[in-house]
Amino acid sequence: MEKATVVKIGGNVVDDPQALREVLQKFAQLQGHKVLVHGGGKIATQIGEKLGVSARMVEGRRITDADTLEVVTMVYGGLANKKIVALLQSMGCNAIGLTGADGNLIPAHKRSGTAIDYGFVGDFEAFHINIALLEKLFQLGISPVVAPLTHDQEGSMLNTNADTIASGLAVALAQDFDTTLVYCFEKKGVLIDINDPDSLIISMDRDSYADYRSKGIIADGMIPKLDNAFNALDAGVAKVRICQASDMVVPESGTSLCL
Amino acid sequence: MEKATVVKIGGNVVDDPQALREVLQKFAQLQGHKVLVHGGGKIATQIGEKLGVSARMVEGRRITDADTLEVVTMVYGGLANKKIVALLQSMGCNAIGLTGADGNLIPAHKRSGTAIDYGFVGDFEAFHINIALLEKLFQLGISPVVAPLTHDQEGSMLNTNADTIASGLAVALAQDFDTTLVYCFEKKGVLIDINDPDSLIISMDRDSYADYRSKGIIADGMIPKLDNAFNALDAGVAKVRICQASDMVVPESGTSLCL
Repeated sequence: MEKATVVKIGGNVVDDPQALREVLQKFAQLQGHKVLVHGGGKIATQIGEKLGVSARMVEGRRITDADTLEVVTMVYGGLANKKIVALLQSMGCNAIGLTGADGNLIPAHKRSGTAIDYGFVGDFEAFHINIALLEKLFQLGISPVVAPLTHDQEGSMLNTNADTIASGLAVALAQDFDTTLVYCFEKKGVLIDINDPDSLIISMDRDSYADYRSKGIIADGMIPKLDNAFNALDAGVAKVRICQASDMVVPESGTSLCL
Repeated sequence: MEKATVVKIGGNVVDDPQALREVLQKFAQLQGHKVLVHGGGKIATQIGEKLGVSARMVEGRRITDADTLEVVTMVYGGLANKKIVALLQSMGCNAIGLTGADGNLIPAHKRSGTAIDYGFVGDFEAFHINIALLEKLFQLGISPVVAPLTHDQEGSMLNTNADTIASGLAVALAQDFDTTLVYCFEKKGVLIDINDPDSLIISMDRDSYADYRSKGIIADGMIPKLDNAFNALDAGVAKVRICQASDMVVPESGTSLCL
């Protein structure tokens, strides 16, 4: 089985030119078939504010109304995605920018049936992902760069979480490839004691994850990330790593959380 | 030789939801391999103004400074491109949005050696266009939708005229396909007498073009469009048509300017 790697980078990296360049140089060095998934970053909020589109929150959750959808389509699908593609091209990596609408890569549906109306937010099933397109691009030596956007097949783009897209793509690729999912993390790693940088967690299984959660060691934003990660493993992904971008290619020992 | 069609639509169509939907329905109905090239539209100027990026003109020519490049990358490569792709997907046309950076479709260089510094504006040679990528996409039944952006292969996107991209793509495809280039035009056609809608010009060769120019019948913005068109014919494109979008598929007799 050929190897494939799906790497997810956060929006904060996309906003920082120097950090972005370093991360992309690592990605360009990765051997084998690879896909980069990027988040949006604060720049969408900043541009939205300048355009008079303020972030609307309901019960702490961001709502994607029609104006916000236009902003994220511009910023994620245009500005961030093409900045990354142009930089990767300059590094000898033949990248192609895609959203879930392009080539019908990720058909999704607008979230419904929830207590909160999230607006133009898309949910999808990994088995609907268009793997044939990714495989053809791999055959051409092309690496897809995927923005956190899907579509409803009825003419509208949808906003979709980048971590979820990364795990969905990894699950879909795992049908045909020995697939590793890498979540690049801004911090050195997951710490047992937030005041002790040597207390890194370097491996975890479902039981220890449950234990860390019950003790409050793993909380907040890490929970959906790790849920995505364990779901990916259950669905056939060979390995999930959570690490700093600098450890993407060859991890220093003890710096990469392996699941 | 298989047939291929390159259709260029203007930015004004992209800005008008009803007109856009009608044009895309026509494009979706076109048989055979096809590529859509779209302009940017006034929305880039409007969004730029809201973001405090005003259009800078030198001797009547728009200059693409770094801020303007960000705006056009967002609006052309994100907002306009993905809006078109999502709509085409809903019409049963498997579209993929591309800029010249994606898959290194159109490697270009920043314009230099001109009296005016145009900023981040890209020029390219048709023979550098990555036809292999287009052919693979055609094999998958996918229709590329190309935004008017290229890249310099050194990490920067570049702003490039959509008419020029359309003729460049048609010339490149003409190596392997019986290629038609269609410029969709907002007006009914090119009129000999602007006050007489029945005075449509329905065919033209180099000699009659020179004659119309010398008489001032063809002037201003039509000149670069027709220059692009005749250059495309000289470089192997089988047919060029300038018509209203409604005549894209089957032209009404006498409504389409054929070169």
